[in-house]
Amino acid sequence: MDLLKNKILSEGIALSDNVLKVDKFLNHQIDPELMVEIGKEFYERFKDDKITKVLTLESSGIAPAVMTALNFNVPAVFARKRKSLTFTNDLLSAQVFSYTKQETNMISVSNQFIKPGDNILIIDDFLANGEAAAALISIVEQADARVAGLGIVIEKSFQSGASILKSKNYRVESLARVQSLTDGTITFVEDAE
Amino acid sequence: MDLLKNKILSEGIALSDNVLKVDKFLNHQIDPELMVEIGKEFYERFKDDKITKVLTLESSGIAPAVMTALNFNVPAVFARKRKSLTFTNDLLSAQVFSYTKQETNMISVSNQFIKPGDNILIIDDFLANGEAAAALISIVEQADARVAGLGIVIEKSFQSGASILKSKNYRVESLARVQSLTDGTITFVEDAE
Repeated sequence: MDLLKNKILSEGIALSDNVLKVDKFLNHQIDPELMVEIGKEFYERFKDDKITKVLTLESSGIAPAVMTALNFNVPAVFARKRKSLTFTNDLLSAQVFSYTKQETNMISVSNQFIKPGDNILIIDDFLANGEAAAALISIVEQADARVAGLGIVIEKSFQSGASILKSKNYRVESLARVQSLTDGTITFVEDAE
Repeated sequence: MDLLKNKILSEGIALSDNVLKVDKFLNHQIDPELMVEIGKEFYERFKDDKITKVLTLESSGIAPAVMTALNFNVPAVFARKRKSLTFTNDLLSAQVFSYTKQETNMISVSNQFIKPGDNILIIDDFLANGEAAAALISIVEQADARVAGLGIVIEKSFQSGASILKSKNYRVESLARVQSLTDGTITFVEDAE
């Protein structure tokens, strides 16, 4: 997705060999028009898949997930990292380790919102080692629902997440695939798009 | 906003005299079409105010904030509750007590994203005692920016937040104003809309 790649090149910062900072447009400040285009692109890629719901993880996944769900005319659900007083239902939960926060979180979704028969599109802002994706997949499968695929805004292809998921036959559609962040330079995987 | 009020009546649950659960459409599962309409409504109410940026707090404020920012053609920024490795800039911070989570959080925004001269529309999902709103206002004013007003999806008018903010001459526009949740019954403040 050229619009996204150009945004990453112009406004992203390679903080280290494996940390890409995109808080000017994705995970702290958000560019709403870019989110609209991301939602359209995920729709194009999964429109034949009879998606019944979009699932993401708070917080940075919410904007792309809601824009995607809008195109499919289905609800978006975000997994929560912590419980609140109004969050009392039976929960589907899984553990996820966050490299950028250096901590393990339990993430949870009310079992009211993912049901057997659902065909779930998982959306997330980043795919690195696949920890968050694996946790979201676990939640979907605990509910006896189906994972239609994963829509990733930025894949760090030099980390293992995408290849692990593909080896397990999950469909992964990444809008930008970063090959390297070495020496502060952002390069993308050359692909057919 | 009748669409929202009807949604609250049909899908909201008064869990107690002061807790309204709206996780079917706003703060766990999200109705994307409703978010579009909320964004349009906030735009209508603030369109003459030369808004330069929309500010909210993760996580439940993000969807309405992004849809609002889309109408104004400005960025949305969400304050974070915790730091991450990619969140290293100088920070504007304020404390906020969450009643529903029974804890105090420090919330922060990079000083890169709110500048003197900005005219900020603050968006949040709920206004109860005004703790989160006060913290977001503090962050804006620490940056020598201006608070154009507050756009609230659901105001719990029986709590003190709205009256405190109005007494300080902040403009508050709430799309649904809940008068009472007593005995499990949701009633709205009768107003001119």
